[in-house]
Amino acid sequence: MKGFALGEIASQLGGELAGDATLRIERLGSLESATPATLCFIADERYRAQLKTTRAGCIVVAPVLRDEAAARGAAIVTPAPHLYFARLSQWWVARTRARPQLGIHSSAQVHPGAEVDASASVGPLCVIEEGARIGARAVIGAHCVIGAGATIGADTRFAARVAFGADCHIGARGIVHGGAVIGADGFGFAPHDGAWIKVEQFGGVRIGDDVEIGANTCIDRGALDDTLIADGVKIDNQVQIGHNVRIGAHTAIAGCVGIAGSTTIGAHCTLAGAVGVAGHLTLADHVHIGPLTGVMQSISKPGAYMGAFPIDENANWEKNAATLRHLYSLRNRLRALEKKSS
Amino acid sequence: MKGFALGEIASQLGGELAGDATLRIERLGSLESATPATLCFIADERYRAQLKTTRAGCIVVAPVLRDEAAARGAAIVTPAPHLYFARLSQWWVARTRARPQLGIHSSAQVHPGAEVDASASVGPLCVIEEGARIGARAVIGAHCVIGAGATIGADTRFAARVAFGADCHIGARGIVHGGAVIGADGFGFAPHDGAWIKVEQFGGVRIGDDVEIGANTCIDRGALDDTLIADGVKIDNQVQIGHNVRIGAHTAIAGCVGIAGSTTIGAHCTLAGAVGVAGHLTLADHVHIGPLTGVMQSISKPGAYMGAFPIDENANWEKNAATLRHLYSLRNRLRALEKKSS
Amino acid sequence: MKGFALGEIASQLGGELAGDATLRIERLGSLESATPATLCFIADERYRAQLKTTRAGCIVVAPVLRDEAAARGAAIVTPAPHLYFARLSQWWVARTRARPQLGIHSSAQVHPGAEVDASASVGPLCVIEEGARIGARAVIGAHCVIGAGATIGADTRFAARVAFGADCHIGARGIVHGGAVIGADGFGFAPHDGAWIKVEQFGGVRIGDDVEIGANTCIDRGALDDTLIADGVKIDNQVQIGHNVRIGAHTAIAGCVGIAGSTTIGAHCTLAGAVGVAGHLTLADHVHIGPLTGVMQSISKPGAYMGAFPIDENANWEKNAATLRHLYSLRNRLRALEKKSS
Repeated sequence: MKGFALGEIASQLGGELAGDATLRIERLGSLESATPATLCFIADERYRAQLKTTRAGCIVVAPVLRDEAAARGAAIVTPAPHLYFARLSQWWVARTRARPQLGIHSSAQVHPGAEVDASASVGPLCVIEEGARIGARAVIGAHCVIGAGATIGADTRFAARVAFGADCHIGARGIVHGGAVIGADGFGFAPHDGAWIKVEQFGGVRIGDDVEIGANTCIDRGALDDTLIADGVKIDNQVQIGHNVRIGAHTAIAGCVGIAGSTTIGAHCTLAGAVGVAGHLTLADHVHIGPLTGVMQSISKPGAYMGAFPIDENANWEKNAATLRHLYSLRNRLRALEKKSS
Repeated sequence: MKGFALGEIASQLGGELAGDATLRIERLGSLESATPATLCFIADERYRAQLKTTRAGCIVVAPVLRDEAAARGAAIVTPAPHLYFARLSQWWVARTRARPQLGIHSSAQVHPGAEVDASASVGPLCVIEEGARIGARAVIGAHCVIGAGATIGADTRFAARVAFGADCHIGARGIVHGGAVIGADGFGFAPHDGAWIKVEQFGGVRIGDDVEIGANTCIDRGALDDTLIADGVKIDNQVQIGHNVRIGAHTAIAGCVGIAGSTTIGAHCTLAGAVGVAGHLTLADHVHIGPLTGVMQSISKPGAYMGAFPIDENANWEKNAATLRHLYSLRNRLRALEKKSS
Repeated sequence: MKGFALGEIASQLGGELAGDATLRIERLGSLESATPATLCFIADERYRAQLKTTRAGCIVVAPVLRDEAAARGAAIVTPAPHLYFARLSQWWVARTRARPQLGIHSSAQVHPGAEVDASASVGPLCVIEEGARIGARAVIGAHCVIGAGATIGADTRFAARVAFGADCHIGARGIVHGGAVIGADGFGFAPHDGAWIKVEQFGGVRIGDDVEIGANTCIDRGALDDTLIADGVKIDNQVQIGHNVRIGAHTAIAGCVGIAGSTTIGAHCTLAGAVGVAGHLTLADHVHIGPLTGVMQSISKPGAYMGAFPIDENANWEKNAATLRHLYSLRNRLRALEKKSS
């Protein structure tokens, strides 16, 4: 039979079930596209109005929406609906998504000196080099390249087409998306007579447990010591992390961020989309940087920081931007007037 | 015989031919590097001066340049030279570029439950998973990975090394360049006790007809519903499109743009290079965003918008940027002076 | 025996050796993680304090630190320690890093019409198309795709998973990192009736000698003529270079930079991280652009330029950014006051 009974879901994941425990849930979905066999959630009272219009069979809500939700159909009441739904989504996937085939695909090129756990899965056309170790229940998608001496922890999953360089390491329960390049050379050169002399990069990349790394993201290997990504860090797509960067535990980094070499980011930080952080800086724990902001100096005080130019209609922007190029002299003119009038 | 006679070109593509119809054109080229066997175009009167210096055998021009162009050699006169040249370039490629070999390369890994049209081409070392469907005359380049249940429309071409995820769909006549990752997980987490709990992503990516997607661009799958890219959308390289974004028809997105999750962009918009758009916004049709601009609020009025910091010599920038951090207090001081003097 | 005697290093690479020539060096490392068998360098007097705390066996220093360094252990004294260390790093790698296996891996797909030098190495699952030429001692990593007619110069190394398009060329001693896409189509369309008509791209990419190209970086092929990257250019990760861009010799481009089509960058320039350069511009030689700066106009004067919004605490930023949207009218109010008071 397709799906799961509401009663089973609530007994496994908790929450107070208000409504018919035998109702069959066939998918998790959004309020807009829900059917009577769909389970949804409302994370925020802002979406309260959708309670009236959705066709969802059951909605996960906070206690404040209990009566309103139960009046229209089944509901699961829990103090943190988003968290509940996150756990439910994992529970659901574990029971419904096809497991990749165990073992090493016949088309993969696995060096005899590599160790692949018997419970791991290595996809078609992968290349696993000498001395690499793939942990228990790890899943390596099609077309991945795992360099010599690299280690992949238990239950870690690589999507198709990840390049994971020699002597790079990732812990347990990690997720790495397609196109990510872990362990390319850092950008290191000594200037000489107008040219750039390459400094070879000897470090690796060391990634903790429960780390997720987005598609086409790059994390460079260290110059001498390792680049370090602590436990629980989440990194979105198209992110660039330079050599010898250190990212503290549970920091989240949104898409298109760039972090230059040798910078240390604290734990529990958030970097919004397209943030740029210069090299050799230190950001304290619990620092939150707004979108499109450039960080050019170290930040020792936790808090929210921002530095993006405000958008405007083109004509207004032109006038304001042109004036901005004379702001300092405007300040001086203001001072002169103040002096005169005092 | 190499190339095509001018007369054949004009008879197939239209325009008024002024000059020798038997002249043989061997390549399309730029005014600077043209030879007497090269056909060029002038899109803009700004380039008029090059009429005097180019060695081109024939030039596609607008009526305003007809006499000047014809005086120096052959010309094709058409109201829209750029459009004419675009169509000519496609006509030329269809007649001169080697077609990839029909059928499935012997080194490709195609699941028996996948359907590949007999007129399609699947390159070396591709992986095509169960239930995927490849349409008529579609070309899948070397090293592509097509996920389970994905569909590729007729005449769509993938360059080498595209990752196209499970349950993602693209229509007819699309082009996807190398390194693109379509259908990686969106960046979705519920915060809990200082850590991030993954929300599994159940949606797909649904892409219309005549869409071009650049190299190393990412389009994430939706969280619950699909991410949507409408017909005729053109996306450049290194672009990041988050989960559940919707892009309206014929919108063009330049390189290095990032669009955060659940944002809706209208039809016929243009986003210039390195634009960043925050999540959960709505941009109307015919909105045009200038380069390096951050869009933090919805835009309901069509028009041109901009928000980039003006570049300056370093010393000037430093003074102005430092003053900018006190702009609000400068405004207050100005107000105080105004009050005093009134 | 592991490593090299200090005396051998100094006799091969020069510098004045102060200390025990028989001391065995087993690795190059950082001052922080050094052991008595580690050789380090100090590039800058700022790091002088670490002379007291490091356990390094030998330190490469400038003459100014000679006595201080020699007092604590062995030292190599040279006017340019960073340059010395760069050369030493190359010397070290040449003697210690495993050379890839000579010849073509049995799983690679090499067209019979391609030419691979007998001293070159082609990794597992590569695809080399018709007419491509791979030079002496070149190394092509696993999963690379080399297009028809492309040429790879002597001693050039491609990491795993490089896509190098048809009719693209790179000279000698180049390095290209994983995920780079060289030779995707430029972003060229003619607008017509609200839609975009593709302009086929006929040019290639021509890259000089001693060029390094970062992971997941894209360099598009030219529309009609070639995109040009001169000798000695160094390009970091996640960089986007549009069609027909020309980069002058020994210019260095940091991560996340985007350069729009048909722009010419001079020689010996530096573009810091996340710089954006608009299309059809010309930058003179020796122009240096600071991080996150947008270049919207040509620059004819060598020097340092900058244009990033200064970061601030969120509340301050909000007030200043809101005021910035009225800067032009503030200027007018200031003028009015000046007139009144004069």
